[in-house]
Amino acid sequence: MGAREVGLPDTVGAGGLPDRVTIWEVGPRDGLQNESEVVPVGTKLEFLDRLADAGGTVLEATSFVHPEWVPQLADAEELLAGLVRRPGVSYPVLVPNERGLDRALRAGVEHVAIFASATETFARRNLNRSLDEQFAMFDPVVAKAKAEGLAVRGYVSMCFGDPWEGAVPREQVVGVGKRLLDMGCDQLSLGDTIGVATPGQVTALLAGFDGVDRLAVHFHDTYGQALANTLAAMQSGVRTIDSSAGGLGGCPYAESATGNLATEDLVWMLDGLGVEHGVDLDKLADTSAWMAQRLGRPSPSRVVRALRG
Amino acid sequence: MGAREVGLPDTVGAGGLPDRVTIWEVGPRDGLQNESEVVPVGTKLEFLDRLADAGGTVLEATSFVHPEWVPQLADAEELLAGLVRRPGVSYPVLVPNERGLDRALRAGVEHVAIFASATETFARRNLNRSLDEQFAMFDPVVAKAKAEGLAVRGYVSMCFGDPWEGAVPREQVVGVGKRLLDMGCDQLSLGDTIGVATPGQVTALLAGFDGVDRLAVHFHDTYGQALANTLAAMQSGVRTIDSSAGGLGGCPYAESATGNLATEDLVWMLDGLGVEHGVDLDKLADTSAWMAQRLGRPSPSRVVRALRG
Repeated sequence: MGAREVGLPDTVGAGGLPDRVTIWEVGPRDGLQNESEVVPVGTKLEFLDRLADAGGTVLEATSFVHPEWVPQLADAEELLAGLVRRPGVSYPVLVPNERGLDRALRAGVEHVAIFASATETFARRNLNRSLDEQFAMFDPVVAKAKAEGLAVRGYVSMCFGDPWEGAVPREQVVGVGKRLLDMGCDQLSLGDTIGVATPGQVTALLAGFDGVDRLAVHFHDTYGQALANTLAAMQSGVRTIDSSAGGLGGCPYAESATGNLATEDLVWMLDGLGVEHGVDLDKLADTSAWMAQRLGRPSPSRVVRALRG
Repeated sequence: MGAREVGLPDTVGAGGLPDRVTIWEVGPRDGLQNESEVVPVGTKLEFLDRLADAGGTVLEATSFVHPEWVPQLADAEELLAGLVRRPGVSYPVLVPNERGLDRALRAGVEHVAIFASATETFARRNLNRSLDEQFAMFDPVVAKAKAEGLAVRGYVSMCFGDPWEGAVPREQVVGVGKRLLDMGCDQLSLGDTIGVATPGQVTALLAGFDGVDRLAVHFHDTYGQALANTLAAMQSGVRTIDSSAGGLGGCPYAESATGNLATEDLVWMLDGLGVEHGVDLDKLADTSAWMAQRLGRPSPSRVVRALRG
């Protein structure tokens, strides 16, 4: 059933929103990386192809993290070798360090992302570095990537809450973000990694930067706040929004646990608001329903369940 | 695990929001009415008691609809006879017509709600009346309720989309709402019965009325939009928000289909925004986890799943 057939009301924009946003699709990387069963590389390639067919223009394809850390993405080289790149579509990849960047460069990527932490504890746990030491690790990565002519995104994780430290001071997040921008990152993606943020906190964090042109937002829907937070970010002028097809990225062992904001739920809102984005909801929902079948459990996206359940 | 322990960031309000809202809890009525297995009246009474314990101040208790239409709520008299009313808590009930009102009056209720339609097709299907004829049906109900000193809420259903008619013209919804207010309703609850609305449409509909003091909103989360729509309504000044404990109210045959906005997801947002409401999230999540166990399936509330899953 298509969106029109379920009684979608007329498009009505809300004041102060951008006319157009870029959806940064993280499903193939952030969505799949927690899956315990390894998804065959052919399925991943079909996933990327379907996402491009549906109108996706930024598809985060994989990560050059050490294969032992994330076995699901150990096929990064094979994936990129098999990828038929579409004109007008960008396929950024995550690179954790210089070694990962070198692998990515050999694979011919044009767009990379690094993954920084806004908190001390997560920096130590995820990067085995202190908050300060992470910059020393990332600096040569960004420098080399820029020298090679790549575009570089900097993820800032745990921007609102941290499971060990609790509330994260806004100044600390802004400080981390600004250092990544100063280092040469073209864009920051501010992530609510554990999904605890609410809209006022989003507005406040964004206001801490000098403008939002280089800011993207990355919300997790653990507490159901992701779309409301996205609305608040758009009201602050943000024009790049991360989301995951079908809401992929939850904890795979909890049947309906939720991870990333589902691209379909985002697209439903953008369509209703009249904010352009270029993604075809029906094709996307088909893709997510197809992937849910491959993964053997229902999509956590409410739109996918409503349209394809 | 409590909300504090999962890394909730500091409370940060967003400009222009109300300082305090009233949560109109619809779980016991709208949440349970679609359950095919009849819930024992003792369980319903415990549910209401727990909701009051958790700080709920408006608990929509049941409906005096004809028992054959909604067998789940056929115990309305028994429920109200067994209800221990708490001081400061209102227990409104739905009354579909004069006969239902008479039953409610005999049961000693002080607050009733009628359920009108914004569309011709739903009026015919749900009320067996035309859009216009519904007013002739409701007029004596409201007049009698007011004469008896009751408070009266008017639900307006299908305010944004209708499964048969598609988009619903805003003027039509405003027209229906104003007739209900003119008839004597103290409050309108504007319902997105099929969950298709997006925030700009909410803002636009609310602007069609002369102020929002007598308006409440009632969002369903079918397409994941309920909380974003609630944020938009609060940004327009709305101070009464309908929600259902644990997100009760989905289609019971689809395991995780979603119905009403979950009270817990709303409370999480309000707590983060610093908007007062009086509900204790931990007690509420305990209540919803308990009810989910009675119903034999997980709560669709993301907060309940995250905190109690």
